[in-house]
Amino acid sequence: MAEAFTWTTRVRYAECDMQGHVFNAHYLTWADTAHTEMMRAAVGPHPELVASGVDFVVAEARVRYRAAAGYDDEIAFDVAVAAVGETSMTTAMTVRRGADTIAEIEVRHVCVDAETFRKRPWPDHVRAGVARFAAA
Amino acid sequence: MAEAFTWTTRVRYAECDMQGHVFNAHYLTWADTAHTEMMRAAVGPHPELVASGVDFVVAEARVRYRAAAGYDDEIAFDVAVAAVGETSMTTAMTVRRGADTIAEIEVRHVCVDAETFRKRPWPDHVRAGVARFAAA
Amino acid sequence: MAEAFTWTTRVRYAECDMQGHVFNAHYLTWADTAHTEMMRAAVGPHPELVASGVDFVVAEARVRYRAAAGYDDEIAFDVAVAAVGETSMTTAMTVRRGADTIAEIEVRHVCVDAETFRKRPWPDHVRAGVARFAAA
Amino acid sequence: MAEAFTWTTRVRYAECDMQGHVFNAHYLTWADTAHTEMMRAAVGPHPELVASGVDFVVAEARVRYRAAAGYDDEIAFDVAVAAVGETSMTTAMTVRRGADTIAEIEVRHVCVDAETFRKRPWPDHVRAGVARFAAA
Repeated sequence: MAEAFTWTTRVRYAECDMQGHVFNAHYLTWADTAHTEMMRAAVGPHPELVASGVDFVVAEARVRYRAAAGYDDEIAFDVAVAAVGETSMTTAMTVRRGADTIAEIEVRHVCVDAETFRKRPWPDHVRAGVARFAAA
Repeated sequence: MAEAFTWTTRVRYAECDMQGHVFNAHYLTWADTAHTEMMRAAVGPHPELVASGVDFVVAEARVRYRAAAGYDDEIAFDVAVAAVGETSMTTAMTVRRGADTIAEIEVRHVCVDAETFRKRPWPDHVRAGVARFAAA
Repeated sequence: MAEAFTWTTRVRYAECDMQGHVFNAHYLTWADTAHTEMMRAAVGPHPELVASGVDFVVAEARVRYRAAAGYDDEIAFDVAVAAVGETSMTTAMTVRRGADTIAEIEVRHVCVDAETFRKRPWPDHVRAGVARFAAA
Repeated sequence: MAEAFTWTTRVRYAECDMQGHVFNAHYLTWADTAHTEMMRAAVGPHPELVASGVDFVVAEARVRYRAAAGYDDEIAFDVAVAAVGETSMTTAMTVRRGADTIAEIEVRHVCVDAETFRKRPWPDHVRAGVARFAAA
């Protein structure tokens, strides 16, 4: 039975634009850190994975912006691993402020060799680790 | 008959990550500027639109990463207006380095009142202006 | 007798450049957040200050880079209020990874009216609040 | 007799904060690109320098903010090489909007081995190249 993984952040001044809201691109920067922290909990620190010769790249990202986030808001990312293929992994994130959904994000990563950046299968320990946060 | 709009940029050092490639979120920051410049050519400067009481927000963004862009690369965004609804506008961008496609981006904007941020129809002059760059 | 204020962050992937180190400009973005959090502890949340008609701008910033910070490092900012004038405030920060100094930063802010951005004296409660973190 | 080197940029929406002005840290990101372009004109593209085993890091940066820059403003950086030592180089930049000075920036770089990041003397061709843009 899958657990939830949640990463939280507080909106920084530098992340807000002239409309007083978080600039749209920063959601992907946050998503990157949310994914890193989920992977840390599931598999271990990213630098250790890279040192073992395995890395990943982003192949596709999609953000649906539901409501604006403002300066100093506390934001939570609920992160679930939606699908794991031979070489790809899709992570689904619900971004919320309290109970209000701010955005929905999907990011598809592809496993690569850390030196050549060629596509390769996910190692078994990665596959096993992320099962803990599989989407319900 | 539709024209092409192209915005170009050169990859900055600060935009590249430890893999030596452009970090994924920066594509949306670029897309924002590419959209701003397309709108400048089609409608006029964004600050003038805002001064007239009209603004827009990003409702959805999608990036498909096809190939890595590297430091100092010259990158072109071919920008086309794919669909204009009552309140929404979808812009399709092909990101390329010379003839090589680096990424495909779709961004859907929604027209809002510049004060209240409530959804409102696109003004006629915006609708007329962007027709010039309608997708074929 | 002055207390220490410390803000911590972990180096994000997006903050590292091709040399594998934190890109130099990000130290000022961090310094902004470190200052915001010091002010929160000393005076209260920044949005409340702005709502009361008071804001501040950066007049000068100086960074001395002593050692490189790397991906996933845990970084601490020791923040002290070095000087408070009629309208200006200088904050001194030591950036460290454990006991190792990474950088030294000084930022001078100037108090302004939140509407007009004209220089104005610091309110008494700000002056009193930050005394808590005055440099030794 | 020294020439002037000027790099220009237009303020992007994402670079402006809730005060409607360019966020302070972005001046160092711009300064990095202004320096890169001055070096391109003086010495050649940065990737070629790195390929030859030579790189540089920022040792110190200082910004004096004189006036606010706003969205869509066209900004010019006048770049001069103020001092070249055995291993260090100080670049002075005046940031202006038309004739108005927006900021003054000094950045001190140190030449390093591109592999080990150990300090090393500037190669002669770098020293000779930047003489063209020496401060008056």
